[in-house]
Amino acid sequence: MSMDTQTIIVDLADRRYPIIITDNLLSNIGLLQNYLTNKQLFFVTNETIAPLYLPKLQAICTHKKVDQIILPDGEQFKTLATFEKIIDKLMQGKFDRGVALCALGGGVIGDITGFAAACYRRGVDFIQIPTTLLAQVDASIGGKTAVNHPLGKNMIGAFYQPKAVLIDVSTLETLPEREYRAGLAEVIKYGLIRDKEFFHWIIQFVNEIESRKPDYLISMIKRCCEIKATITVADEHEAGERAILNFGHTFGHAIEAATEYKSWLHGETVAIGMVAASYISLQYKHIRMEEFDSLINLLNQLKLPTVMTQTIHVATLKSYMAQDKKIINEKMKLILLNEIGQAIISEECSEHMIDMALRYIGAI
Amino acid sequence: MSMDTQTIIVDLADRRYPIIITDNLLSNIGLLQNYLTNKQLFFVTNETIAPLYLPKLQAICTHKKVDQIILPDGEQFKTLATFEKIIDKLMQGKFDRGVALCALGGGVIGDITGFAAACYRRGVDFIQIPTTLLAQVDASIGGKTAVNHPLGKNMIGAFYQPKAVLIDVSTLETLPEREYRAGLAEVIKYGLIRDKEFFHWIIQFVNEIESRKPDYLISMIKRCCEIKATITVADEHEAGERAILNFGHTFGHAIEAATEYKSWLHGETVAIGMVAASYISLQYKHIRMEEFDSLINLLNQLKLPTVMTQTIHVATLKSYMAQDKKIINEKMKLILLNEIGQAIISEECSEHMIDMALRYIGAI
Repeated sequence: MSMDTQTIIVDLADRRYPIIITDNLLSNIGLLQNYLTNKQLFFVTNETIAPLYLPKLQAICTHKKVDQIILPDGEQFKTLATFEKIIDKLMQGKFDRGVALCALGGGVIGDITGFAAACYRRGVDFIQIPTTLLAQVDASIGGKTAVNHPLGKNMIGAFYQPKAVLIDVSTLETLPEREYRAGLAEVIKYGLIRDKEFFHWIIQFVNEIESRKPDYLISMIKRCCEIKATITVADEHEAGERAILNFGHTFGHAIEAATEYKSWLHGETVAIGMVAASYISLQYKHIRMEEFDSLINLLNQLKLPTVMTQTIHVATLKSYMAQDKKIINEKMKLILLNEIGQAIISEECSEHMIDMALRYIGAI
Repeated sequence: MSMDTQTIIVDLADRRYPIIITDNLLSNIGLLQNYLTNKQLFFVTNETIAPLYLPKLQAICTHKKVDQIILPDGEQFKTLATFEKIIDKLMQGKFDRGVALCALGGGVIGDITGFAAACYRRGVDFIQIPTTLLAQVDASIGGKTAVNHPLGKNMIGAFYQPKAVLIDVSTLETLPEREYRAGLAEVIKYGLIRDKEFFHWIIQFVNEIESRKPDYLISMIKRCCEIKATITVADEHEAGERAILNFGHTFGHAIEAATEYKSWLHGETVAIGMVAASYISLQYKHIRMEEFDSLINLLNQLKLPTVMTQTIHVATLKSYMAQDKKIINEKMKLILLNEIGQAIISEECSEHMIDMALRYIGAI
């Protein structure tokens, strides 16, 4: 199996943009120059990623006005204060409306850079260069940008589309194993919510995926991007169907908040959250026990958690779930599975059922 | 002459919204309830306006979840720090995506509330209730929202459309005379850039306008809103023609920045800026000396400034002009008059000509 560069066009009328997926993209000067066309470029990256890839990118910018900001690494820096630092440096550097902000890093970098691009001078160009699996299959696609508020995740943000998403699967070679596995939770999610065949493909090629074979990575990431692009084009501002992308996330966000974003990676809480949502789907007899088991087995095989390991109270998690953005006028929306490969938005889930699911994943 | 409630529809497809213009609107419970339909309302206002109108609005909200934040009055509070205070109070009050943020006040309140509405949970409903002439004819229409950065005005913001704009001309009765006159600078601007007949209407009825006769106010404000709505619908994100609304503003913003936003009201600097831009238009023989004089006479009659009264250097103003958002890839765009009633975007203005215009308005 051999693959060339894959391109997906996200068809948002006047804001359509390409997703490029290939290996060794950051060493491919010709390809990069096709997309980094602005005369002013401002890179936002972090201390882990900067030494690995920033010099490669700067090398192709000889005739441009270029600057960068290197942030500390971690979700705890996805704040309004960090956002302000980016704006300060753009203002001090006198970048005008012609600048493109380039996010080089994982989801945190992409989210905060996108929000800065959305707000700087009321909006400048934005280019995503995601370097983690999570960012490549999820965070960089769909135009959601945000920073966290002390009382809730992603509470300050904007819907803002990038001009291009450049995915180099070679960057995954250096990704720590735990982060790679966490990203696979979102990959599995796409199978569960939209594509039964893809779910079974993951199970079939789980070894190739674990060993990060480039061709399999390109296929896998391409399918995830296609699914996410299709869903987000149909519902850019999350008025309806897009909510299915949050499968597992209402639980996951609550677990992240209850553990102060310190114990788990985002993808790990999504894995646990998908177990909770699938458990409810099982109780409502939408999915069969064998299907539920196949999910648990796959998560186990990929060493992803299926239960919490801390002592967290049911009431604590529920109060964080009530804070979730998916709530409109106090009615809780939950994403469940109608079957493997088909998610549904439910407003009918009883509080008792939510309690049971929270206990199943280890809450007390 | 007697007038009913005037309605203008701003036709932005899925985000079309009405502008309602009438007198005694804030005492008209039936009319208000047609537009304040959200079950959660959060009012943003300031210490000057709150005692005058906030109780009236709260009185109609008996079956709603309601809260408010009362900010200190002044442009110096249009900052990211104040934005954060609004978000904090929304989060602490557990307002969800169903909330409408209502801006009750002038342009500062509208700009900061709109930016908070654009960003809170990635966007919630936004209702404008402008109480100054400047906000009624300019700031509340067209979807520009922002806060200031220490190095430049409106540098952090978003294009975000309101759900409705509710204009009560009765609020102008209590508006301080200096603020009212400053607002008239923007009114004159609409005549200059788009409607020669309206420019002459202002000259003809200058006494009725000065004495704030409600029927004349409704007519005048309606015409301004129509012009601004037409221009902004055609060019929502200021890619092209919308820039003509900045007639006088590139100079005006520079004067505001050079005087640290302390000496002049925004409209007053726009008046001086329009003189500078008209002076250049005169030099290029686009307008005749009699037309230039008719502008100067009108500004004098309305006690609006036509020159600066401080000692400010030409170079200082030019460095602030170079910071202006209207600059893309280092080329300065200036809005000039092709004739009275027709503005044009020019990139050809020489630096020498800009120096001359700055000297004409009193720079040294």
